[in-house]
Amino acid sequence: MTTMTTMSISGTQLIGSQERLGLAGSFRAHSPLRGEALEPPFGGGDAADVEAACRLAEQAFDEFRKLLPERRAALLEAIAEGLLALGDTLLERAHLETALPLARLQGERQRTVNQLRLFADWLRAGQWQGARLDAALPERQPPRPDLRAQRIAIGPVAVFGASNFPLAFSVAGGDTASALAAGCPVVAKAHPAHPGTSELVGRVIQRAVAEAGLPAGVFSLLHDAGTALGQALVQHPAIQAVGFTGSRRGGLALQALAQARPQPIPVFAEMSAVNPVLLLPAALSARAETLAQGFVDSLTLGVGQFCTNPGLLIAVAGPALERFVAAAAQALATRAAGTLLTPGIQRAYQQGLEQLDAQPGVQRAAAGLAAEGAAQARLSRVSAPDFLANPLLQEECFGPSALLVSCRDAGELRAVLNALDGQLTATLQLDADDHPLAHQLLPLLERRAGRIIANGWPTGVEVCHAMVHGGPFPASSNAQHSSVGTLAMERFLRPVCYQGFPDALLPPALQEANPLQLHRQHEGIPRAPGR
Amino acid sequence: MTTMTTMSISGTQLIGSQERLGLAGSFRAHSPLRGEALEPPFGGGDAADVEAACRLAEQAFDEFRKLLPERRAALLEAIAEGLLALGDTLLERAHLETALPLARLQGERQRTVNQLRLFADWLRAGQWQGARLDAALPERQPPRPDLRAQRIAIGPVAVFGASNFPLAFSVAGGDTASALAAGCPVVAKAHPAHPGTSELVGRVIQRAVAEAGLPAGVFSLLHDAGTALGQALVQHPAIQAVGFTGSRRGGLALQALAQARPQPIPVFAEMSAVNPVLLLPAALSARAETLAQGFVDSLTLGVGQFCTNPGLLIAVAGPALERFVAAAAQALATRAAGTLLTPGIQRAYQQGLEQLDAQPGVQRAAAGLAAEGAAQARLSRVSAPDFLANPLLQEECFGPSALLVSCRDAGELRAVLNALDGQLTATLQLDADDHPLAHQLLPLLERRAGRIIANGWPTGVEVCHAMVHGGPFPASSNAQHSSVGTLAMERFLRPVCYQGFPDALLPPALQEANPLQLHRQHEGIPRAPGR
Repeated sequence: MTTMTTMSISGTQLIGSQERLGLAGSFRAHSPLRGEALEPPFGGGDAADVEAACRLAEQAFDEFRKLLPERRAALLEAIAEGLLALGDTLLERAHLETALPLARLQGERQRTVNQLRLFADWLRAGQWQGARLDAALPERQPPRPDLRAQRIAIGPVAVFGASNFPLAFSVAGGDTASALAAGCPVVAKAHPAHPGTSELVGRVIQRAVAEAGLPAGVFSLLHDAGTALGQALVQHPAIQAVGFTGSRRGGLALQALAQARPQPIPVFAEMSAVNPVLLLPAALSARAETLAQGFVDSLTLGVGQFCTNPGLLIAVAGPALERFVAAAAQALATRAAGTLLTPGIQRAYQQGLEQLDAQPGVQRAAAGLAAEGAAQARLSRVSAPDFLANPLLQEECFGPSALLVSCRDAGELRAVLNALDGQLTATLQLDADDHPLAHQLLPLLERRAGRIIANGWPTGVEVCHAMVHGGPFPASSNAQHSSVGTLAMERFLRPVCYQGFPDALLPPALQEANPLQLHRQHEGIPRAPGR
Repeated sequence: MTTMTTMSISGTQLIGSQERLGLAGSFRAHSPLRGEALEPPFGGGDAADVEAACRLAEQAFDEFRKLLPERRAALLEAIAEGLLALGDTLLERAHLETALPLARLQGERQRTVNQLRLFADWLRAGQWQGARLDAALPERQPPRPDLRAQRIAIGPVAVFGASNFPLAFSVAGGDTASALAAGCPVVAKAHPAHPGTSELVGRVIQRAVAEAGLPAGVFSLLHDAGTALGQALVQHPAIQAVGFTGSRRGGLALQALAQARPQPIPVFAEMSAVNPVLLLPAALSARAETLAQGFVDSLTLGVGQFCTNPGLLIAVAGPALERFVAAAAQALATRAAGTLLTPGIQRAYQQGLEQLDAQPGVQRAAAGLAAEGAAQARLSRVSAPDFLANPLLQEECFGPSALLVSCRDAGELRAVLNALDGQLTATLQLDADDHPLAHQLLPLLERRAGRIIANGWPTGVEVCHAMVHGGPFPASSNAQHSSVGTLAMERFLRPVCYQGFPDALLPPALQEANPLQLHRQHEGIPRAPGR
C-alpha cells in the first residue's frame, strides 16, 4: 500500500502541463498517527514558480472563460471521475497525512465528487450567467439604447487548501470547483499538512485539463511549507481573487496583502466561528437527554475539526439544563481522545484548553477520555455575566471543545447573543412553545450568522443551491458570499453590460436567439427559454 | 426666488426626526456663477452627531428590514413625490450651488425620481430577495434537511453624496434609494458643495419616513465641510457598508478606514475613469465628421463633469483620423468655456491641463473658447509609444478634456488597450467591416470595463435592470457590483440560509405558501409564483 502511494507522488509542483521541483527548501508530510515523516520530500516553490504559474493562468484566461459552459462542465466531470479512479491510493495517502478515518475520507471524497458534478449541472443550467435584457426604446425622449448584461469570470484565482478537509476544501474542493466553473484558471497552493494528497488530486486536474484540450494554464499546483510563496501568489498582478479556508490570522494576513496591492483584489476567506447553539426552554425541558446526545455527537465528529463545530451552547439555567449537562457528561465520558490533523493543531488545542481553564468563572463540566498527544473532548461552563465580561471566551478553540453559557433568564440570553461576533452558523433547539422566544431571537441571529439551523446540528454542510457557508466578520471576510453550494460561484464573477451591440458581437448568453437556451430576465421579468 | 429658497433651508442637520445644528465649525455654500457665498450658514457635525444618527439607524434597522417590501416601495414613491413637490425651490437652489443649467437639473431630478420608482417596482417584483428552496430528502443517506435561502439587508449604510450630481448621486440618489430599498437605514453626509440642495432633499426623506410611520432612524443627514465627520461615520460600529461617488483619493481613504475597523465593512466607491473610446478604421473612414460631432457633444456635456466623460480616444493614425481631428477642432472652436461645480474643481482642471501640456509628446489638437475662471474644452494628442511610456497620461482630468492616442496599427492599439487601467465604460465606434477587429478587442475590453458601448457615447447612464455602472479598479473599489440600476441593490444585501425551519418561523419570502408571490428557485430551477 505505502509503496503504491509513494510511487505515484513525486514531490514536484505542477505548473500548467509541466512538473517543476521547487528549489526553495524541502519538506515532508508528517503522519500524525505514526508520528513520523512520510516519503517523498516536496520541494517548496519560489517567486519564479509563482510567476510561471500565474503567467500561464493569465494566458489561459480568455480562452477558458469564453468556452461554451458545456466544455467546462465536462472538465469538472472528468476531474470527478479522475478522483474516483484514484481509488484507495487517494484515501490511504489522505489517511496517512491527516489521521482522518478512511470512512470519513470516503464520505469527503463523495462530497467533493458531488460538488464538482453539481457545478457541472449548474454550468449547464446557466442562471449563473445572470443574463438581463432591456430592449431599446427608440421613441422615448431621450431614446433608450438596447442594454444587456451578464456575469463573466473575474480572472485567475489563487486557492489555498484547508488543513481539515484534504479533499472537499483543498486542491479540487469547493473553491477550485467554483472558480473553474466560473471560467477562472486556478493556481492552488497545497496545504503543507497534506502535500501528497494534494499532488494526487492536482495530477487528476492536470490530466483532465490536457485531455479536454484546454490551455495548460487553467490549473497549477504549488508547494511551500511556509508563507512566502502564498504571499507572492496573492501579490501577483495576474491573480484577481483569492479563495481561502483556514485561521483568522491567515485569512487576515492575505486580506491585508490583497488590499495593499496596486490593484486591490477580493479575498474570500472563510475563517473562524464558534457556531452558537441555543437550547430554548421548552425543547430543553422536553428532551434534554436527546439534545445532549446530539450535541456530543456533533462536537466530537471528526475530532471537532470542522469550521461548523458547535463550540458555544447558550441556555437559561435550571433543572432542565442540569439534566442536559449530566447527560452530556455521561455521553462524553466514554469518548476516546482523538488524533488531530497536525502536531501544531494538537499544541494549539492543548493551549486553548489551558487558556479556557484559566479564565475567571470558567468551570469544567464534562470531559472525554484523555490520552497522551491526543485531543480530549471537553465541555466547560460559565455564567452569562462572566462570558460577557471576557471577549477571549468567544475565541474558537479548534477541536472538540465547547463552552456552555448559562443565563439567568431570556434577557441575559439576548444580551449574550447581542455580544456575539459574526458566525458561520447559529442553531436553535426549539419546540412549539419556544416559537414566541425564537421569533424574538431570530433577528439577532440573522444579523450574526450565514446559516440558521432549527433542531439540527451545525456540522454537516449540505452542498446545494440554498446553502450559505459564510457569515459576518470574523466568520468570513465577506458576508455577501458563500463558499459552499452553487452560490459560491458568484465570488468569481462580475457583471458586464453591453450597450447598443450588434447581435453578432454579443456573447452567446445575450444573443437575441438565446442559443444557450437560458432563463433570462427581460425588463426585470424572468422568462424561461423558448417563451 | 432667493428668499423662498433660503427660507426653507436652516443649515441644520437632520438626525432621525430631529434637527440639530452642527457645532463643529460653520460653512456656507458657494455660488460658482456669482462667485459669492450663499445663505444660510451650515453647522458642521461632530462625533456626537455621528453617534446619535448611527444609534438611531441601528435601532431602526430590524423593523425597517423586516417590513413587507410594499412598505418600503411606498416610502420610495413618497420621496419621489416629495422631490417633485419641491418644484423650482429645489432646482433653483441646486443651480445656485452647482452652476448646472436648470434644464440639466430638471433632467437629473426626473432621473432621480425615476430611479426611486424603479426601486419601488423592483421591491414589489421581489427577485432581489434571491429566494432559493431545496427540499428535504429524508430517504437519502445521510438525510438532507430542508434548506432555504434569501438575501437580507446588510445593516445601516453610510452614503457620501457626489459633487457632480447634486440630485441623482446625492442625498436621495442611487446609493440612498438602493440602500433603503434593500432595507438598510441611511446616514447620509451631504456634499459641502451643495448643502442647501442636500437639506431640501433630506427634509423630503425625513418627512416621508415620518408620514409612513417608520422609525425615525431610517434616515439622517449630516454636514461637514471637511473630512473628520465622514471618517467618524465610516468607523462607527453600527455602519455596515458605505456608498461613495467621488475622487480616487477620497474613495481609497474611506476604503482604508473601513478595512482598518475591528470589523471591516465593504466600501462601494465609484471613483475615476477615462472611459476609452475606440474609433475603429472602417467607422472612422466612413463617418469621421459625424463621430467628431458626437464626441464633442459628449465631451462637453455638463462641462465634462461626468464620471463617464470620454477622456481617452484611441485610433489608428491616417487620413481618416486627421479628418476626425479637424472636424473635432472645428466643432470645439465655438464651444464656450463652462463654469465648473466648484473653484476647487476649476483649479484642479487648470492644473490637469498644464500637467498634460508638460508631458513628453503631448500636443494640443483642438480647444474650445477660453474665459477667465471657466473651463476651456480641450483635445490633446499623443503617440501610442509616448502614451505607453507615461502612466500619468491615464489619470482622469475631471472636466472637458480628452486625449487622443494615435496608434501606428492594430498591434499598437492592442498594446494601448492592454496597458489601460480598469474603467467604468469602454466604447467601440465600428462598422460591419470592423467586426473582425472588434471580436479581437472585445476580450480586452470586457476585462477592463463594466459597460461596453457600441456606436454610442459613454455619457448618459440609463437606470434599468441591465445597467452596470462600476468596473475594475480603479474605476470602482468593487468590480462585482453596480452603483446604478436594480443591480445596485445587491451591494446592500447578504444571503442567509434557514435549515430545517418550521414554516411559521420562516420569513415570508421562504414560506411554503409563497405569500409574497415571488419567483423562486426550487432545486436550482426558476419557478414563477403559482406554478
